[in-house]
Amino acid sequence: MNKKMTLLLFSGEYDKAMAALILANTAREMDIEVTIFFTFWGLFLLRDPERISKEDKTTYEKMFSMMTPKGPEALPLSKMNFSGLGKKMLLEMMEDDDAPRLIDFLNGARKKGVKFYGCKLSMEIMGLKEEELIPELEVVTADKYIADAMDSNIQLFI
Amino acid sequence: MNKKMTLLLFSGEYDKAMAALILANTAREMDIEVTIFFTFWGLFLLRDPERISKEDKTTYEKMFSMMTPKGPEALPLSKMNFSGLGKKMLLEMMEDDDAPRLIDFLNGARKKGVKFYGCKLSMEIMGLKEEELIPELEVVTADKYIADAMDSNIQLFI
Amino acid sequence: MNKKMTLLLFSGEYDKAMAALILANTAREMDIEVTIFFTFWGLFLLRDPERISKEDKTTYEKMFSMMTPKGPEALPLSKMNFSGLGKKMLLEMMEDDDAPRLIDFLNGARKKGVKFYGCKLSMEIMGLKEEELIPELEVVTADKYIADAMDSNIQLFI
Repeated sequence: MNKKMTLLLFSGEYDKAMAALILANTAREMDIEVTIFFTFWGLFLLRDPERISKEDKTTYEKMFSMMTPKGPEALPLSKMNFSGLGKKMLLEMMEDDDAPRLIDFLNGARKKGVKFYGCKLSMEIMGLKEEELIPELEVVTADKYIADAMDSNIQLFI
Repeated sequence: MNKKMTLLLFSGEYDKAMAALILANTAREMDIEVTIFFTFWGLFLLRDPERISKEDKTTYEKMFSMMTPKGPEALPLSKMNFSGLGKKMLLEMMEDDDAPRLIDFLNGARKKGVKFYGCKLSMEIMGLKEEELIPELEVVTADKYIADAMDSNIQLFI
Repeated sequence: MNKKMTLLLFSGEYDKAMAALILANTAREMDIEVTIFFTFWGLFLLRDPERISKEDKTTYEKMFSMMTPKGPEALPLSKMNFSGLGKKMLLEMMEDDDAPRLIDFLNGARKKGVKFYGCKLSMEIMGLKEEELIPELEVVTADKYIADAMDSNIQLFI
């Protein structure tokens, strides 16, 4: 059996998404199959700021779309965000260490063949359309996640 | 060996509890054994608003009981709660998609035979009594959770 | 194969750290090998308040060091912290039940032989030096965590 890691990304925060993608990219370099199932707030990591659309959305969905982060670099920190100041500080500290940004880790994961699954139910409720998210995303239901996680060596809820 | 999933629900938030119960119910429909170990804030999901009691509680426990959510529908969102406004918006969006509410997912889990374990230490500290929570709950210590998780195919901390 | 549990502690909160350490100590008492990989905010649990240093730090790192919790007992609650009031209340409730404090659970884990790994990248970004943290800590990269988690019976992201 192949080695396999299945992450469920529920959180929509810069630091948690970074942790998830560092794990995913590291595992791929170790030749481990990696799937990330994006659900709820986690889906906002996959938003392409160039492709945000208002079509086929209810009034609530349009409001929700405006109030939520527009892609990876717009995600807040899970702690010490201080309306963006704490995040700016962390980004400066990352730059001082030549650490890549979240968007770089995301693009790395796309190149390294991480599988991206989006939760159908969450997307329907939040009014997120497939064409607004990165093209690698495949929309699936929760049973697909469970089946995948079932024969994974590592499963984490982030 | 039977297939098995063991969730640890630490968080007391509407959206995270919904994620946990959707996973639990989906797994049950796939004939997977499911146990949820409720600890800390997660226990408030199991509070029965009709059975909240002040008996045998210290002053702190009474205050704590008043300040904490009274059952599933009273839980806040983990993000964008905005004193309940964001949650109301999400509930409207769920209704537009005919998605069930948290209480429905909880009742579904009870009917489908999900096992409910409550963490003894958390309940003692918070002053939560067994008779205030749903009747399916069995109060256990952490070693019971560890033993269960040990031979599960999926374990998640939510 | 030995039984093994690998925790990843990302969160820097009193209640979540307590959950992690209770699981770790309980597993050790059941003769299960336990490793905790501390990353991001989780590292602040391992800060020794007596050994905080300003040496070899950039201006941002010094500011960050001042703004972040100084050791286990300084961590905030994940919910209902109320600028420390909610935490004080919880601590009183724990005392009423003779429950140990976080620092006691941490010292227990050190005595029981839990392995402590610190994430190299997080420490570099945040400017945390090895000599500021507990002496048991071994600094490792993410692939060490993945390799460990790969052959663990339980892996949780906390």
